[in-house]
Amino acid sequence: MATYTTDQRQLFTGSTIAVLKPATTEQVADIVRLAAHRGIGIVPQGGNTSYCGGATPDTSGRQIIVSLERMDRIREVDPVSMSISVDAGAILKNVQNAAANAGLLLPLSLGAEGSCRIGGNIGTNAGGLSVVRYGMTRDLLLGIEAVLSDGTVVSDMRKLRKNNTGYDIKQCFAGSEGTLGIVTGAVLRLAPLPTRRASAWLKLASGAPLAELLALVRRESADLLTTFEFMTARSIALATEAMTNPPSVRAGSGGTVLAEFASSSRHVGLDELMEAVLAEAIEAGWIEDAFLAQSESQRTAMWQLREAIPEGEKRRNGSVKHDISVPLSSIQRFLDLAASQVRSYDADLELSVYGHAGDGNLHYNVLVPPDVDRTEFTKRIESGLSLQLYDTAAALGGTFSAEHGVGRFKKHLLERYGDVGRIAAMRRIKKAFDPAGIMNPGAIVRPWRKEPAS
Amino acid sequence: MATYTTDQRQLFTGSTIAVLKPATTEQVADIVRLAAHRGIGIVPQGGNTSYCGGATPDTSGRQIIVSLERMDRIREVDPVSMSISVDAGAILKNVQNAAANAGLLLPLSLGAEGSCRIGGNIGTNAGGLSVVRYGMTRDLLLGIEAVLSDGTVVSDMRKLRKNNTGYDIKQCFAGSEGTLGIVTGAVLRLAPLPTRRASAWLKLASGAPLAELLALVRRESADLLTTFEFMTARSIALATEAMTNPPSVRAGSGGTVLAEFASSSRHVGLDELMEAVLAEAIEAGWIEDAFLAQSESQRTAMWQLREAIPEGEKRRNGSVKHDISVPLSSIQRFLDLAASQVRSYDADLELSVYGHAGDGNLHYNVLVPPDVDRTEFTKRIESGLSLQLYDTAAALGGTFSAEHGVGRFKKHLLERYGDVGRIAAMRRIKKAFDPAGIMNPGAIVRPWRKEPAS
Ligand SMILES: Cc1cc2nc3c(=O)[nH]c(=O)nc-3n(C[C@H](O)[C@H](O)[C@H](O)COP(=O)(O)OP(=O)(O)OC[C@H]3O[C@@H](n4cnc5c(N)ncnc54)[C@H](O)[C@@H]3O)c2cc1C
Ligand SMILES: Cc1cc2nc3c(=O)[nH]c(=O)nc-3n(C[C@H](O)[C@H](O)[C@H](O)COP(=O)(O)OP(=O)(O)OC[C@H]3O[C@@H](n4cnc5c(N)ncnc54)[C@H](O)[C@@H]3O)c2cc1C
Repeated sequence: MATYTTDQRQLFTGSTIAVLKPATTEQVADIVRLAAHRGIGIVPQGGNTSYCGGATPDTSGRQIIVSLERMDRIREVDPVSMSISVDAGAILKNVQNAAANAGLLLPLSLGAEGSCRIGGNIGTNAGGLSVVRYGMTRDLLLGIEAVLSDGTVVSDMRKLRKNNTGYDIKQCFAGSEGTLGIVTGAVLRLAPLPTRRASAWLKLASGAPLAELLALVRRESADLLTTFEFMTARSIALATEAMTNPPSVRAGSGGTVLAEFASSSRHVGLDELMEAVLAEAIEAGWIEDAFLAQSESQRTAMWQLREAIPEGEKRRNGSVKHDISVPLSSIQRFLDLAASQVRSYDADLELSVYGHAGDGNLHYNVLVPPDVDRTEFTKRIESGLSLQLYDTAAALGGTFSAEHGVGRFKKHLLERYGDVGRIAAMRRIKKAFDPAGIMNPGAIVRPWRKEPAS
Repeated sequence: MATYTTDQRQLFTGSTIAVLKPATTEQVADIVRLAAHRGIGIVPQGGNTSYCGGATPDTSGRQIIVSLERMDRIREVDPVSMSISVDAGAILKNVQNAAANAGLLLPLSLGAEGSCRIGGNIGTNAGGLSVVRYGMTRDLLLGIEAVLSDGTVVSDMRKLRKNNTGYDIKQCFAGSEGTLGIVTGAVLRLAPLPTRRASAWLKLASGAPLAELLALVRRESADLLTTFEFMTARSIALATEAMTNPPSVRAGSGGTVLAEFASSSRHVGLDELMEAVLAEAIEAGWIEDAFLAQSESQRTAMWQLREAIPEGEKRRNGSVKHDISVPLSSIQRFLDLAASQVRSYDADLELSVYGHAGDGNLHYNVLVPPDVDRTEFTKRIESGLSLQLYDTAAALGGTFSAEHGVGRFKKHLLERYGDVGRIAAMRRIKKAFDPAGIMNPGAIVRPWRKEPAS
């Protein structure tokens, strides 16, 4: 049971009446009707890999978990329409594979892809490693099937690129973290499968302007850029410690960017393109040096290093994560201001800063010192330094959650930073979809100011 | 007054108490509060270029029009963040120009761009000529400012690519056609400005599979395709009649596709790329011949021809428009089935069929015979043949409105074809945002089954 009631960062354990594992949409609707009748709170769960406790029940013991894990079918791949229809419980990796087998790309890729599920990706509006080119989960959503809080089934499993026939209900579910209904199926947009990639390790000069570099790379690559990941030397060192065969790459004095171009055409010479772009960036004085992967194994090694960072942090003693996003034009300013805030808060703290810089999204993580209690340290940082960092992001027009969501852990931040009108509108939506407050009670917002019975 | 109370297709004239032209967001909020207090219906209006009567008041004479035309400022272009912030009354063309002056592209382009306004584009979730590469208005929306039905201002003018902090309220407004509130400002995503284009006129072989051709072109162009417009010989002939200096291009026996690749990089040879792609399509037997624009003036001529089609139809005696969308894999089947439906309905009818085939979106228009009353003919077709055509689209998983919306003219179609659960969810949203039913009463849906007082 513990795997269902504990969040993936192991910060919180709730309790539950039961974990239900429906096999069909009808069974989901039956469960919801019964729960509605009895006033029982429902926590939808996919792979339980999310970072904000949205998939974890509270401690009341009066909520049920509805796990979609048995609903994991690929319903249809339509290569001509470039779409894939799946059960919401399908594991992301399996959906990627089904698309690839039909010569197409599902352009959603993230560290947890081996265990997270499409319903959870929709619930959190997951981003990941190729947002700069393809957008977030929301942008890939063509159709949806979902059970509302009274058991009504919304059935809109269309493969259409365009369907302007009233409010686009499926968009409500993207990022709703289980609070508006249970997603049971989805149609996702596919793209031509890249057959060529060029991947480069860019050693940044000290003070190199990240956003200007990004603009140059996007422009001169004809926007064939799929990935633009920033990593500081500290994050790279942590990742290296976690790998058995780390590649012998080093960070530049301003950190590193892992950039990748991808193309589905044999008529575009990607390596030449990358070389031309890098030459311009070196000329501008923004990168000290660059290393272009010469083989698939070199490419894989770069990626493994990037993806080993969370594991590297975990092996150290974990980190307090800040999933910050700022306008691209303010990335540099955020990094400067935040660094000085950390210094004056506690000069001994160590950081692991990396992330999807191509989207203005940084994982600004404070490492838990090796000899310290992780939970206590997290609490201390989150009630102090974290708020300073979020204040800085907010002052720059940024946000405290770029891609991880609000869940149960960040509700107070939503109340602190959310515009009053926007939160009021959110309450209206919550109340419209879930008047009795049975859908994931305690996550994101309350339908009204009083907390409903869980 | 008539320009405000008559829809752009001149199918309907309503009446109004007054046309109000606020200059600031605060004035919009004041108007809304006053109207709410008095129970007066509000019709938001931009350029009044939309096709479904959504911007036109009803005949009760009890509604006011709120025109955003005085709120037309470009608030800020941020070239580094690649974003533009504007008043909702800004004319699309002016926003495009402001972006271009900063070396960036606003990737929303449509025939009415000289007079339609950003608030109207958001209201209809406008598509247009480059959706295949850049998406619809929804996909470009980074931030919003809007006045809700009680005068509350939602202020979320952020420039962020990622902001997963609860329900994404701005998404509710895309395609809401003025029924949830009045949009007063928006932040839009920009892209690198293409500096090179390759445009080709593809003469299709008879029975050429459009979707397979599209897939080939997308794949082998490395997805640099920005436009994939289909035109039948009849539509081309109509456009030619409307032009003073028509180019001497002809349709293939299966019609024509205007395809365009665009690139912001000087390192990608677009003409060579286009030639390689066309060679493959000829090899496959899907195109008879192709003509690659050799100069900017040839390129412009092709585009003028494409854009003269609506004018060509108008000069004839207008057309009954069907803004149909089907899954890409069903385009051919739709064309076949629809043609035989038209034949058996009335063998003398003439068609003008063209559209954004790259998105599965066809304008399947029935020409009004020259000697016939346009309004009466439209009524006859819409209550007979149109429903057959929409039935066919629906049976193929398609829709009766791809990009034009529902407005006042297509409400009966939404009730006919909309999934019950989806319409129920739409009613909940309408009721949540506009419980008194004062926002554009009579458009899209009613908050509940009874029509509220207008
Ligand atoms: C190693 C690692 C790397 C990650 N990298 C990224 C990244 O790069 N980008 C990123 O955006 N995220 C990342 N994440 C976090 C991300 O949120 C999740 O990995 C994923 O999107 C969640 O999917 P899940 O199936 O595990 O959802 P869960 O954790 O099970 O649920 C997430 C939320 O969605 C709701 N939900 C789940 N299923 C449904 C459903 N069927 N209907 C309605 N609501 C539902 C839940 O109630 C919960 O609120 C990462 C996580 C890990 C562990
Ligand atoms: C020649 C021509 C070509 C066209 N081509 C295309 C095309 O390729 N693709 C496409 O998608 N459409 C196309 N259209 C139709 C398209 O809907 C409009 O051109 C445009 O998007 C509407 O903008 P507008 O400012 O004229 O809106 P209006 O007609 O004024 O309003 C449209 C709707 O939005 C609402 N609205 C307007 N402003 C606001 C606001 N500030 N806040 C809230 N609601 C508001 C109105 O109440 C109404 O319901 C074309 C139209 C013409 C005449």
